[in-house]
Amino acid sequence: MKPFSLFHRSTSSEARCGLLETAHGTIETPAFMPVGSQGTVKGLEPEEVRACGFRMILGNAYHLFLRPGHELIESMGGLHHFMQWDGGILTDSGGYQIVSLADLCKITEEGVGFRSHLNGDWHLLSPEKSMAIQVALGSDIMMVLDHCPPFPCTESQAREAVQRTTRWARRSVEVPRKDHQWVFGIVQGGVFHALRKESAQGLIDINLDGFALGGLSLGEEKSAMFEMIETVVQELPPARPRYLMGVGLPEDLVEGVARGLDLFDCVIPTRHGRTGWLFTTTGRVLIKQAQYAKDPGPVDPECGCPVCQKFSRAYLRHLFVANEMLGVRLNTIHNLWYYGSLMQGLRQAIREDRFAEFRSEFYRRRISESQSTKELGEEVPG
Amino acid sequence: MKPFSLFHRSTSSEARCGLLETAHGTIETPAFMPVGSQGTVKGLEPEEVRACGFRMILGNAYHLFLRPGHELIESMGGLHHFMQWDGGILTDSGGYQIVSLADLCKITEEGVGFRSHLNGDWHLLSPEKSMAIQVALGSDIMMVLDHCPPFPCTESQAREAVQRTTRWARRSVEVPRKDHQWVFGIVQGGVFHALRKESAQGLIDINLDGFALGGLSLGEEKSAMFEMIETVVQELPPARPRYLMGVGLPEDLVEGVARGLDLFDCVIPTRHGRTGWLFTTTGRVLIKQAQYAKDPGPVDPECGCPVCQKFSRAYLRHLFVANEMLGVRLNTIHNLWYYGSLMQGLRQAIREDRFAEFRSEFYRRRISESQSTKELGEEVPG
Repeated sequence: MKPFSLFHRSTSSEARCGLLETAHGTIETPAFMPVGSQGTVKGLEPEEVRACGFRMILGNAYHLFLRPGHELIESMGGLHHFMQWDGGILTDSGGYQIVSLADLCKITEEGVGFRSHLNGDWHLLSPEKSMAIQVALGSDIMMVLDHCPPFPCTESQAREAVQRTTRWARRSVEVPRKDHQWVFGIVQGGVFHALRKESAQGLIDINLDGFALGGLSLGEEKSAMFEMIETVVQELPPARPRYLMGVGLPEDLVEGVARGLDLFDCVIPTRHGRTGWLFTTTGRVLIKQAQYAKDPGPVDPECGCPVCQKFSRAYLRHLFVANEMLGVRLNTIHNLWYYGSLMQGLRQAIREDRFAEFRSEFYRRRISESQSTKELGEEVPG
Repeated sequence: MKPFSLFHRSTSSEARCGLLETAHGTIETPAFMPVGSQGTVKGLEPEEVRACGFRMILGNAYHLFLRPGHELIESMGGLHHFMQWDGGILTDSGGYQIVSLADLCKITEEGVGFRSHLNGDWHLLSPEKSMAIQVALGSDIMMVLDHCPPFPCTESQAREAVQRTTRWARRSVEVPRKDHQWVFGIVQGGVFHALRKESAQGLIDINLDGFALGGLSLGEEKSAMFEMIETVVQELPPARPRYLMGVGLPEDLVEGVARGLDLFDCVIPTRHGRTGWLFTTTGRVLIKQAQYAKDPGPVDPECGCPVCQKFSRAYLRHLFVANEMLGVRLNTIHNLWYYGSLMQGLRQAIREDRFAEFRSEFYRRRISESQSTKELGEEVPG
């Protein structure tokens, strides 16, 4: 089985369509992966995630190692069987989660020492250990443990992280794994062009099945993020999948695809759903706003999701204001459906050689959003 | 349309099967109604509630009056349309909720004055106002405002509540309502046989479509509750439906049915689900217990619910321990399915003249539970 094959390239941009083969089905790219850190996409059953158009989700080695434990999951037949998801699973290595979630962490050449955010236990996550966890989980795509420096960081800090990430990637691919468990490396380098290039080059020499861009959307300017993406994509072999980690908003996906990226994950559709921030073709709907109290229409009249087929904005607002769990659930379904449809639209536009039109139309429809963003200030849900 | 018709009586007990006709379908009795106080059965979509076997749910005039307001719901086409539930809706009058939830309440002959538990606003709920709210909501069955004294209370307090409840019922039936909106009276009287009889007799003289037993399961001995039920049932006209409010555990439903009751509602299946207390044919499963950490089996091997078809006890325990919303949801579905199946089993047993066998079998299967209850002490979920 070959992990990845390209079958169409856009003529007007770097956008491309591919097929990512996993032991749990073929994923059409560009693809977005909903986040299911703890063995569940929050609030949804696996078949609902699939109905939103997704064939691969993201799990987290960090969360599942701490609770319920990768050995327990392995003894239950692996993560797919444990959570009853028969599609693909990409697992993050834990490097980023340790830095962002753990109470204390100490990075040495051996690995990342950290205190669990759950009970304070001290653990050491080495590149080998992270791979072993992901092997036990039965991941289809495993991420190597990386050293992800915070933003901002100095060039020398970024260089140290790049070089360590490359050394760790070399150690990672030596860990025995099952057939058809792909391993992706992670390009670091902060906002430094030369370091991003060096990181990509260092990883290319290792036998990796794909490449991720890490350490982006951490607070840098959006223009800097896209510059880094362009720099890295130029270095990467076209025949391998490219994955932008932890990004982002719908426009980030459109722009990432335009720059030749194939895979994305982000908590935004699910987390924003929980805070009542709903995505629509014409812009966002903050469902708590009083203007929706008596609004009998659906969240998005053009949306085909099961929520928009049935429930009014007024009802969703009531559920949100009354702190009812059903509201969180319906918002999540709607947002994931929006993301799923967006990716489906992007794939179709690329295949039909009208990516540029799709991209302009995407922004044209959302003029109303940029206006409402100005009115509201740059409010971000908590 | 005649509200209620009996079509089978058990030969070995007071148990009976009937059909309750509403503007939103026929409900086979004995029936249990899941609680949807705020316009949603917590966490579930209407079709899921239906799939669990329910054709009628309970809404609360108190909650919906305060938020989002009965007038808003009326302007949205009524509660059925607002929440997209096309089955029957019985609404509680608000009397009990005010006493249990409001910050302060003052009962006069005019009605119940209270401070909202949401924002402290002062409101007066009169019998007429409660009916008007329920008419606006579009309820299929409306409960009259009652005076529900706390437990314990003195005989003279209970008598005052009985007499006021009767006077309020007389005022309630005078309020204009739509065709096929049935009105049920509420029998009060605490744990005093004579008062329960007096209350039932007083309500029979009023043109009510059915009768409820209120003020039970408030802390009295279970034997006292069943004695009150027996006393009241003897007084009530057999041709009218009888509804036990806010009760209870599975065994309470079996015993209530045995004593000739037709309708039940309770938060137990949904609330216990949220606390990880799962009902099974052989007893309860407290899913947080360590014994389930690696248990690959379903919650109940005999259960036909979608949760037991797919997910293991180990996975449900993980979701519960990790505080994942999906766990709450799956637990709720399982518990409601259990209640729905129990009621279906009771109806079938009555129709087939084997209610006594069903009842013995129900207890025989649950021997394991009473053992585990002893081991655990009388632990009750929060």
